[in-house]
Order: sequence, then structure tokens, then C-alpha cells
Amino acid sequence: MAYYLGIDGGGSKTYALLTNESGHVLGKGKSGNGNHQINAAQAANNIRSAAADALAQAGLRQEDVNHAYFGLAGADREADYQILHPMIRALGFNHYSINCDTIIGLRAGTNHSYGVALICGTGTNSAGRNPQGVHYQCGGFDYMYGDFGGGGALNIEVFRSVIRAWDGREQPTLLTGLLLDMLGYKDVETLFNDFQDHGRSVPVHAAKLLFEAAALNDAVALEILRHQGEELGKSASAVVHRLVWRTIRLTLYSQEVY
Amino acid sequence: MAYYLGIDGGGSKTYALLTNESGHVLGKGKSGNGNHQINAAQAANNIRSAAADALAQAGLRQEDVNHAYFGLAGADREADYQILHPMIRALGFNHYSINCDTIIGLRAGTNHSYGVALICGTGTNSAGRNPQGVHYQCGGFDYMYGDFGGGGALNIEVFRSVIRAWDGREQPTLLTGLLLDMLGYKDVETLFNDFQDHGRSVPVHAAKLLFEAAALNDAVALEILRHQGEELGKSASAVVHRLVWRTIRLTLYSQEVY
Repeated sequence: MAYYLGIDGGGSKTYALLTNESGHVLGKGKSGNGNHQINAAQAANNIRSAAADALAQAGLRQEDVNHAYFGLAGADREADYQILHPMIRALGFNHYSINCDTIIGLRAGTNHSYGVALICGTGTNSAGRNPQGVHYQCGGFDYMYGDFGGGGALNIEVFRSVIRAWDGREQPTLLTGLLLDMLGYKDVETLFNDFQDHGRSVPVHAAKLLFEAAALNDAVALEILRHQGEELGKSASAVVHRLVWRTIRLTLYSQEVY
Repeated sequence: MAYYLGIDGGGSKTYALLTNESGHVLGKGKSGNGNHQINAAQAANNIRSAAADALAQAGLRQEDVNHAYFGLAGADREADYQILHPMIRALGFNHYSINCDTIIGLRAGTNHSYGVALICGTGTNSAGRNPQGVHYQCGGFDYMYGDFGGGGALNIEVFRSVIRAWDGREQPTLLTGLLLDMLGYKDVETLFNDFQDHGRSVPVHAAKLLFEAAALNDAVALEILRHQGEELGKSASAVVHRLVWRTIRLTLYSQEVY
């Protein structure tokens, strides 16, 4: 019997899954941040511990694993692989591969060997593989390097839209009432001053309010979501064009990330 | 003879000007950062030293000054004034006023007692005063609090537009050649990797390239400048509406900030 270990390492959590050759799950593991760009020593520990938990649950030893596949956030450029290969090699698996977590999203989303994966988590990222096996990744390096959106940025968009509606630079929005309720302030002036006085960051849940407001046909929320969708479309289009791909089949597949 | 001292304190430089009652300039002073939000002790020293230089040049003592007026970047909210009043009081002038530097821009731009001033320096800011003397300030607190643009943000817009043209998310732009020339890279891939590897910030001169590219009718540069103009227009409009102002006379007045 052959055994396979899969690791999905993200900025907030790392999952491990151990299966046999027929895909039957024998063990699972879970830990925190697995992105070396955030904290390399922490990521190494978390990846090791998630893998160890899956092995223990399956009652297997490391040398029983035929191939371990690491899909890691932060595995973006050559400079990353120069850090990641020694880190993963030190875990001691006989055979392993490392790839960007965008690619495991693609593999999980379709049974084809090719496709385009769009990530819209805390940030955004995209990658694709064409039927000839050529790979291209686009984005994943934050606003300065061309990205827009993801939960982190959408939180800010909600917050600033509420401020702009209050100071007169933008139209009124339902996001105002929703954000005040969520954060427990009586009015925007109090919220504004408290955030300024204490250098507060917008809570990660603010982006959720976009969907509530959009469902009520709020123009500001709809515009932010339209912009986010357009950005994801531009990323997909860039990947498809780069890989000189004529026909494309569209499969939509999503994961709740909150 | 009455004497007046004016101070213009910004994030990078502080100017002092000493005049007599007929407006004749008797002394000047210049120093660095005068924004307490950046560094309060440094700002206090710089304001003191610029004032001292102007007094020395005029051959006057502090007690000869009838009124000193401090127009300071960072004089935005009540919380700022609670820091600024003790700081300025300690300088020992008989009579003084403190206001936001936006307001001294307004006073310098028109002989009327009312108007709207738009700041587009490193960041953006706006403020106005109506014929009844009512004052309103809008913006000046960065992107999260509703601003867009200013030189700092436009540098980023130039950089990311070049990256997006290269990775396929946006149309080609003349900014690419201009930025590579300015920074001395042979291609965008080399620039991208060097910036990533060394966590570089975009140089403050990148925003200038927008005007070069726009003069050559570059669509990407024109769109960024259009967006910046629209934002300044929204700020002006917010101020005018808040001050319930019916007639408005438009005087354009600008200062080269590079």
C-alpha cells in the first residue's frame, strides 16, 4: 500500500491530510501559520507538527509516506524556494514536492490537469497551468505590486466608505449602520476619533458587511464588490493570455474563508 | 511699529517669516519637519529654530512680536491641539494662534476671507471657510480614512501600473520605459525581483513620470491623474456643501512641491 501526505500551508492555518493510494483519508493534522514570509521558524514548526499529527492519527511513520506534497503560501519566487527547500528537506520525507498554495487550489477545484485558480483570501493571487503543462502565476504580492482586494483590503474599503459618506466625499451607504452596529459605536465621529486616537486596525470581519449591504442593493457595497470581481477577472485573463490558451472551461468552486 | 511672525510647518520643512505691519519682510528662517505627528520633539525644535533665525535676521527679540501665527501640518483634531498648545506656549510669544497648514494655504491663495484650499503634497487634505467664517476640514488622514492620492500614493500608482502592464493585468504604458530609465533597470522582471528581494520603496520622484507620460497621451497615466483630480474635486465639493455655500469663485493657485 502506498501513502501520500498533503500539506496546505496558509498565513493563518496549516492543514495536513494523509491518504492511502485509493484516496482514503487515514489521518489529519492542523496547526497555525505555514507561510515562511510571515515567520520562517514558526512556519517550519507548524508544518512539522501538522504532518506529525496526521501520521500519528494514521499510525504510520514518516518513512512509510511515498510522497509528501507541500502547497505553501509564500512559495512564490526562486528566492522563496531557496529558503523552502532546506526547510522541507529537513523534515526528512523520502520524496517531496513544494508548490504555491494557489496550485493545490487548482488541483482541488478540477479533475483536469489544467485550469486557472483565483485566490481571494486575506489577499489575492492567481495561477494557471495549460494543457501543455506550462505554468504561470500572476499577483500575490500586495497593492504596490499590482494586486487589489482580498479580505484585508476589503475591510479597509468598508471603513473608508463609511468615513467618506460621513465627511461628504461619497454618497451615503448602508455600510455605515452595519459597521457602527458591528463595532458598537453610536456615530461615525466617535468611531473616527477612537480609531485615530488609538491607531486601531479595521477588524477582519468588516468585509462581510459588503455582502449584507449588497443584498440590500447598496450602491457603494456593490461597486466595491464589482471592483473586486473585475480584478479577479483581470488576473484570470492575464493567466489565460500568458499561457496562450484558446478554449477555456469555466468551473466555479469556492471556499468560505472567514 | 508692530511685528508679525508666520510659521509654515510641514512634514519635510518649516518656514518662518517675520514682517512689519505694512507686510515688509524683515527676516526668514528655515528648518526641517514641523509636524508633531511625525516627531513631536523634533517638530518643537525645528519650529523654535526657524522662528529664532527669522528674529535674528530681523534684529528683533521675541517680545517685540505682536502676534505669531503657526500653520502646522498635523494640527487636525482636538487631540492634536492638546499637544500643540503646550508646545507652542512654551516658545514664549505674547500672542499666538495655531491652525492647520491647510488654512495658511487658503490665506495665501486669495485676498478674500473665505474659500477652499486643496492640498496635494505627499498626501492630500482640504479645508474651507465660508463668508460667515464657518470652517470645515475634510481629509488629511490617509487612505484608510478616505483619502486617495498625493505624491506618496501616486508613486505607488506608477510602480504598480508598470508591474500590471508586465504581468498582463493591465494595458501597456509609457510609464514602463520611463520608470526603468529613471531607476536604471534593464527590464521589469529585474526591477520586480530587486524590489522584492530588498523590500524597496518607490522613490518619491516616480509621480513626476505621470506628467511626462500624460503629455504623450498615455492612457494609464491620464487615468491616474484623472482619478487624482476627481478626488480633489470631491474634497472641494464636500467642503462647499458642508458650509452651505451658494456662490463660489474659483481661483487656481499652485505651488511646485517636488
